[in-house]
Amino acid sequence: MVDFHQTKDFFHIPDGLTYLCGNSLGPLPRDLPAALTSQLSAEWGEMIIGGWNNAGWMNLSEKIGNRIGRFIGAPKDTTIMGDTLSIKIFQALGAALKLNPKRKIILTDNSNFPSDIYIAQGLTAFLNQGYKVKLVNPEEIINEMNDQVATMLLTEVDYKTGIRHDLVELTTKAKLEGIVTIWDLAHSIGAVPVNVQKADIDFAVGCTYKYLNGGPGSPAFIYTNPKLLTQIQSPITGWLGHANPFQFSLDYEPASTINRLIVGTPPVIGLSVLDFALGIWEGITVEDVHDKSMQLSEKFIDGIKSHCPTIKVISPENPVDRGSHVALEHPEGYAIVKFLIENSVICDFREPDNIRFGIAPLYNDAADIQRAVEVLTMAMEYQPWKYEHYQSRNFVT
Amino acid sequence: MVDFHQTKDFFHIPDGLTYLCGNSLGPLPRDLPAALTSQLSAEWGEMIIGGWNNAGWMNLSEKIGNRIGRFIGAPKDTTIMGDTLSIKIFQALGAALKLNPKRKIILTDNSNFPSDIYIAQGLTAFLNQGYKVKLVNPEEIINEMNDQVATMLLTEVDYKTGIRHDLVELTTKAKLEGIVTIWDLAHSIGAVPVNVQKADIDFAVGCTYKYLNGGPGSPAFIYTNPKLLTQIQSPITGWLGHANPFQFSLDYEPASTINRLIVGTPPVIGLSVLDFALGIWEGITVEDVHDKSMQLSEKFIDGIKSHCPTIKVISPENPVDRGSHVALEHPEGYAIVKFLIENSVICDFREPDNIRFGIAPLYNDAADIQRAVEVLTMAMEYQPWKYEHYQSRNFVT
Repeated sequence: MVDFHQTKDFFHIPDGLTYLCGNSLGPLPRDLPAALTSQLSAEWGEMIIGGWNNAGWMNLSEKIGNRIGRFIGAPKDTTIMGDTLSIKIFQALGAALKLNPKRKIILTDNSNFPSDIYIAQGLTAFLNQGYKVKLVNPEEIINEMNDQVATMLLTEVDYKTGIRHDLVELTTKAKLEGIVTIWDLAHSIGAVPVNVQKADIDFAVGCTYKYLNGGPGSPAFIYTNPKLLTQIQSPITGWLGHANPFQFSLDYEPASTINRLIVGTPPVIGLSVLDFALGIWEGITVEDVHDKSMQLSEKFIDGIKSHCPTIKVISPENPVDRGSHVALEHPEGYAIVKFLIENSVICDFREPDNIRFGIAPLYNDAADIQRAVEVLTMAMEYQPWKYEHYQSRNFVT
Repeated sequence: MVDFHQTKDFFHIPDGLTYLCGNSLGPLPRDLPAALTSQLSAEWGEMIIGGWNNAGWMNLSEKIGNRIGRFIGAPKDTTIMGDTLSIKIFQALGAALKLNPKRKIILTDNSNFPSDIYIAQGLTAFLNQGYKVKLVNPEEIINEMNDQVATMLLTEVDYKTGIRHDLVELTTKAKLEGIVTIWDLAHSIGAVPVNVQKADIDFAVGCTYKYLNGGPGSPAFIYTNPKLLTQIQSPITGWLGHANPFQFSLDYEPASTINRLIVGTPPVIGLSVLDFALGIWEGITVEDVHDKSMQLSEKFIDGIKSHCPTIKVISPENPVDRGSHVALEHPEGYAIVKFLIENSVICDFREPDNIRFGIAPLYNDAADIQRAVEVLTMAMEYQPWKYEHYQSRNFVT
């Protein structure tokens, strides 16, 4: 039994703040700044260039890849860190098209995160070889799989609604149709149980700054099915993906390991921060966190239904059908979010009318849920959208 | 007149160490750990998700891009940060091929940094449309420019020998031939004066962990000639390169600014570290640093010639023809480097017989040069290659 009171104490949550935005950015691990200071001084400070060997910097991408792998049921040495999620999607898509050279369609849904769609659009435009991005409604994906589809790129948990695709069912169908599967687990990792190996998916990618608390812009990950490893041709062939990078040969020869998906020099400081943040998970499973998250989200949805009946809950009723955030819909969503934030309940807004509350049991508890319901109830009474103050927008929403 | 005694004090150099490896990784700015701790606490800690707006995280790539731009003579808003150098090369190469659609050759030299070559090889293999990487000797580049060449990718300062291409001459010739120019300034920025605008080059890219001291794996930069800005089609079209990323539209529309070369979420912590490191340069120009570097390297070369006549200096005699490192050649280079490092003179080795000494006047002085010559002289007497101890290798050299 995990003591979530204890895990909450590992984070710095400013006094009086109800932070329900971990689906966007996890909070600062409390002891991280001090630990990072010591580490920077001991490694970069004392070893300087020697840190590549002596502080293990050159193996950080693999080491942390393996720590990340355990969240998604990946076997050892099949997950590697680096770059951003968009880059990792580009690599996976590029490799997938090469694995399925006679097919021209990239299948995805119109509820996918825009960057996933943009990367696919940019890649097909760049290739200019008749590839097409097919964008359908999420529920139509299952009927759109056929022998024209080279690869299917889906985000398991919808970034807006929280609706969770049936990863196992869709992957099984895709395999029958000979489609290479790419799952974006940005809103899954550290939130809902996923087993990439059991589901036999081909590629998984994700970011680490949401439920894994790696900090703003922390490095991304990519998993590859070990069956495919030696066949994968990454479009981006940087030196650290080479079989022998320090031979400095003039011909690219991909590593025979997951390292072939590394591109350039690893972002050591970002990786070190993430490494520290992952330490909080020692002894905790995603299942523990997911159980607690379902409890809290049930409580939240019940509260909304009782106290704010004019707000529509758009996340699924059945908790296993949603990720770890709850999405509400209201035509005045932006003003409501601004009111909530100014009353120290941190959530976020997504166009056009979507209000998201991330629930991360490592630091969220029943009191947070209660406070969020209270302030939402106040908002419904106060009707902030009637005031200009609540309508003016920030750049990042 | 810059007081280089003062700038040396901005860095942490371990006691007794002669650090001549800034061409690979600059040392830790002394006050960085404390500053980073405060910043992490004040921004990620207190603002959490609010940091994107309130701490300016979303504009960091542009803000630091402009700070970097001043090192290379780039006008405002033509340089942007992100990812790694290999990714930025991929973007520039991809865009260059689209700018010159009838030509099939990527011209580069066999002395270029391997990752540059690998990226070009991977890109042409991925496109599979008859593109070819033409690899020639550095001195043959000028004669290989013709109307078959789509783009020329060169590193201004050779990572091994320190030989500096004539950027202005080669760019001028390339323009006459209608070739899109891409200059890798990894070993130039913060070391030798470059003016991308006067030279009218098309793309410049580089890393920031060498002479700019951004830390291991710090973010890369890319500059684009403003004339080309709105024509550039990046192969990697992530959400933060979109004209309106927070509209979350389903169609990619590139930003009309240099932001179109941003891909994913910016690595905020890495950028913040770099931002701090750049502060050391306030009031100092690259010309100041280059003048001092030429003085010190002259002294070093003179010392080698006098005291170690069996070691060959392979960097050019004329200081303006080389970058800020001096390369020596000796068949027992690896053992010599190991001996030097174990005697606290930090330099590095590159296959097969290359010994590199980076000279960074922000923290290197005449005493460092004298000590390096002394220990090299000792090495020539001691002949460490006769002992097995000096032959066993580390992974990162």
